[in-house]
Amino acid sequence: MPQPTIAPAKPNQSPGLDSPLRGGMPLKHVVESQQFTVPLLMELFERSRGMERVVARGGSLDYQNRIMTTLFYAPSTRTRLSFEAAMHRLGGRVLSTENAGAFSSEVEGEQVEDSIRIIGSYSDVIVIRHLEDDGARRAAEVSPVPVINAGDGKGGQHPTQALLDLYTIYRQRPLDGLSVAIIGELDKGRTARSLAYLLAKFDRVKMFFVSPPQLQMKPDILDYLEEHGVRYELESDIDRVIGEVDVVYQTRIRPERVRDVTDLRSYAIDSTVVQRMKADALILHPLPRTVELDKSVDADPRAMYFRQARYGLYVRMALLTMLLETR
Amino acid sequence: MPQPTIAPAKPNQSPGLDSPLRGGMPLKHVVESQQFTVPLLMELFERSRGMERVVARGGSLDYQNRIMTTLFYAPSTRTRLSFEAAMHRLGGRVLSTENAGAFSSEVEGEQVEDSIRIIGSYSDVIVIRHLEDDGARRAAEVSPVPVINAGDGKGGQHPTQALLDLYTIYRQRPLDGLSVAIIGELDKGRTARSLAYLLAKFDRVKMFFVSPPQLQMKPDILDYLEEHGVRYELESDIDRVIGEVDVVYQTRIRPERVRDVTDLRSYAIDSTVVQRMKADALILHPLPRTVELDKSVDADPRAMYFRQARYGLYVRMALLTMLLETR
Amino acid sequence: MPQPTIAPAKPNQSPGLDSPLRGGMPLKHVVESQQFTVPLLMELFERSRGMERVVARGGSLDYQNRIMTTLFYAPSTRTRLSFEAAMHRLGGRVLSTENAGAFSSEVEGEQVEDSIRIIGSYSDVIVIRHLEDDGARRAAEVSPVPVINAGDGKGGQHPTQALLDLYTIYRQRPLDGLSVAIIGELDKGRTARSLAYLLAKFDRVKMFFVSPPQLQMKPDILDYLEEHGVRYELESDIDRVIGEVDVVYQTRIRPERVRDVTDLRSYAIDSTVVQRMKADALILHPLPRTVELDKSVDADPRAMYFRQARYGLYVRMALLTMLLETR
Repeated sequence: MPQPTIAPAKPNQSPGLDSPLRGGMPLKHVVESQQFTVPLLMELFERSRGMERVVARGGSLDYQNRIMTTLFYAPSTRTRLSFEAAMHRLGGRVLSTENAGAFSSEVEGEQVEDSIRIIGSYSDVIVIRHLEDDGARRAAEVSPVPVINAGDGKGGQHPTQALLDLYTIYRQRPLDGLSVAIIGELDKGRTARSLAYLLAKFDRVKMFFVSPPQLQMKPDILDYLEEHGVRYELESDIDRVIGEVDVVYQTRIRPERVRDVTDLRSYAIDSTVVQRMKADALILHPLPRTVELDKSVDADPRAMYFRQARYGLYVRMALLTMLLETR
Repeated sequence: MPQPTIAPAKPNQSPGLDSPLRGGMPLKHVVESQQFTVPLLMELFERSRGMERVVARGGSLDYQNRIMTTLFYAPSTRTRLSFEAAMHRLGGRVLSTENAGAFSSEVEGEQVEDSIRIIGSYSDVIVIRHLEDDGARRAAEVSPVPVINAGDGKGGQHPTQALLDLYTIYRQRPLDGLSVAIIGELDKGRTARSLAYLLAKFDRVKMFFVSPPQLQMKPDILDYLEEHGVRYELESDIDRVIGEVDVVYQTRIRPERVRDVTDLRSYAIDSTVVQRMKADALILHPLPRTVELDKSVDADPRAMYFRQARYGLYVRMALLTMLLETR
Repeated sequence: MPQPTIAPAKPNQSPGLDSPLRGGMPLKHVVESQQFTVPLLMELFERSRGMERVVARGGSLDYQNRIMTTLFYAPSTRTRLSFEAAMHRLGGRVLSTENAGAFSSEVEGEQVEDSIRIIGSYSDVIVIRHLEDDGARRAAEVSPVPVINAGDGKGGQHPTQALLDLYTIYRQRPLDGLSVAIIGELDKGRTARSLAYLLAKFDRVKMFFVSPPQLQMKPDILDYLEEHGVRYELESDIDRVIGEVDVVYQTRIRPERVRDVTDLRSYAIDSTVVQRMKADALILHPLPRTVELDKSVDADPRAMYFRQARYGLYVRMALLTMLLETR
């Protein structure tokens, strides 16, 4: 089994390989964001920094005999390509499905469990996007190799998006004590949901969930926050929070989910809204965007959303090394 | 032209490279299972054993400048990924089409022959799944590089599936003298058809074709068996053979092909049926499965079907080396 | 940043690396064929010759840490696989989309600009096929990495096809003084349009545009030719030009675009038409073909169209090296 090394450096210079944080908590599968502890997050982010250096050097790691399969039952070009780029930047190999849902005999009654057992017999790690909320968990339960949830169901999770969102913040400022506005269609927002779980791990965080009342965060998250003593507020007026938060996490609202399309405007961010933000606020968006985030914001130094995509590469590289090392 | 070597071993340790069986029978294309002689099968299986060792060691062979194209006019995620994993495990490169049928201008009148000539000009081997029964043969006739049939037509062949099925049996017991029940929708069962042709190559084999009468094996196969003096029986009652065969090869029956869906149950295998099998019987299934093979069988040591998928990797690796060497 | 080298040769033996033609004209994006000057074309072709030798040797270049993404909003199996083969033959890595148009949330209002910014953050070069005529140009305007137009719109351009068409001619004879018949549905013929722009770069070229009058070349091209003093004739009768041209560039006419399907026959090339061509004429076709180019022509030594596909590999390899070097 090959040892990952940063070419051309020596193995003991691998990012995070000597970290004391590794002790006793190997990462087996990535199903939901709340499975990450703060020490595990810190190890991941430390490794991600290392990956930034690897990519900047134009190098790669020693994963040339490792195979990652992207098994996407629904298409998501950006997420899939980001994972595949990460595996390639590690020196590894990729098996890819662009739309296994349309092309699979699973529609005729086959179970995801059998597909995972089969694909796991010739892959070293499986990245899955499934149509059902528990698809990734079911896959992980039977898989002989690590499974990564790349988004499941209509209101499930998207933990690696939350990891890269958090890493983007981490690269700019301390995570303790943050105030964060999470805006959009929150009841079905996989990325918003996964990020809320992650932020709850840190001290003195306060979250503002900004959404039309009928699309607010569901009780599963709110209960979780209350159990863990995390402060939050439900808000429907973006103006009441935009000036006081450190981070604005904007997401999409689908037009068919509001009564009046003009309602969408009141949740949109443009250059006027940005003027009322803190001078050092961070503006994040998982992308793709439509009307909720105007292009006039792109040139603002507080706009982090294109940087997020690049950080996603490093975080996914780091995550893959952690999963492949434990085998 | 690079010589395949097991890294980091020396070339003369390549599996099967010195085999006397190679003399005078280079493998050019793989179109149908009956083209394989017993010596060629034995060479393939010997090489497949070698590939098991290569993969176990985490190594790869020296095919880094070789390109395999998977040209699938109908999607088949598992078969395609298995071939692609095999090429990657050899160190090679892959060009992939997930659903060329939907995406191709062939629907507007283009011929597969032109596509093969073009793709053959920048690939070293082409794996094709075609919609017509003679698609693979037509491809092989014009291709400048080896063509492998990955399943053609609705009642054509799927020879590499049969090769891995046979290898699965070979790994457990001698192939001469076997009694085998092949169960399912046999008239259109590509894998069942290809396996029957292959089994007929061995001495004292007896096949039981178990199927609703209207879905029985077609005369082309039965004629072939009679010409070659191979014993077989047509049977519609699974209970009359299940207790006496060495191998049970179960396949799917599509519900729309039987008059009464409850008929499907009488051909299904579950833990009750398994109890009546020989203690050392082997249960194979090409997968995917639906109701015809119950999950209660999965834990039975006689269940070989997940192992089949893994063996498929080795057999396809071995087959690719044989095809690429002869060029 | 790795330097491309022909393995195992030394860096200074890279094709075209020392060329004086490089001075002052780095290639940044490939959007339309008229952007190529004659010196740049000559450098490209010189490098393409070098690539022929690399492939013949079974070698590859040193691009193992470079990633190319094929972002196809409409499927085109042959063009996509040709680019991917080129990147693999350079030793590089590929991220692939077979049909991003069907699978993308862009249909819901997302802009190609955002996709390009994101994909450009983890790729080194992007090959795009877009549905709109200005898709490639819009992509190039925001991309942090080189963009190659692999065909845009319904009547846009397909510059790399034109480059390989021209290279095919170049490999057979001098480009100055050529007479060329371009036949087919010219108003919407991307390859015909791109080739016309390219041929106009050379001295004493004369083009005959042969097409049903309602499908003739559009004024944008004709104006360009007149401005540059290039001779051309519009013709609707293939018989009046077929005997006097050096190159016949045949393309498809879709049946729904002519009043009478029998009209298509008068523009078709078969063994009878070929007899009237010059003894050293060249017959090109971008493929795929239907009725407009009969199989009886395939064996004629003047038929270049399968060779075109192979030359396409070399030209795309060369183009990729020129784009990746300038970064």
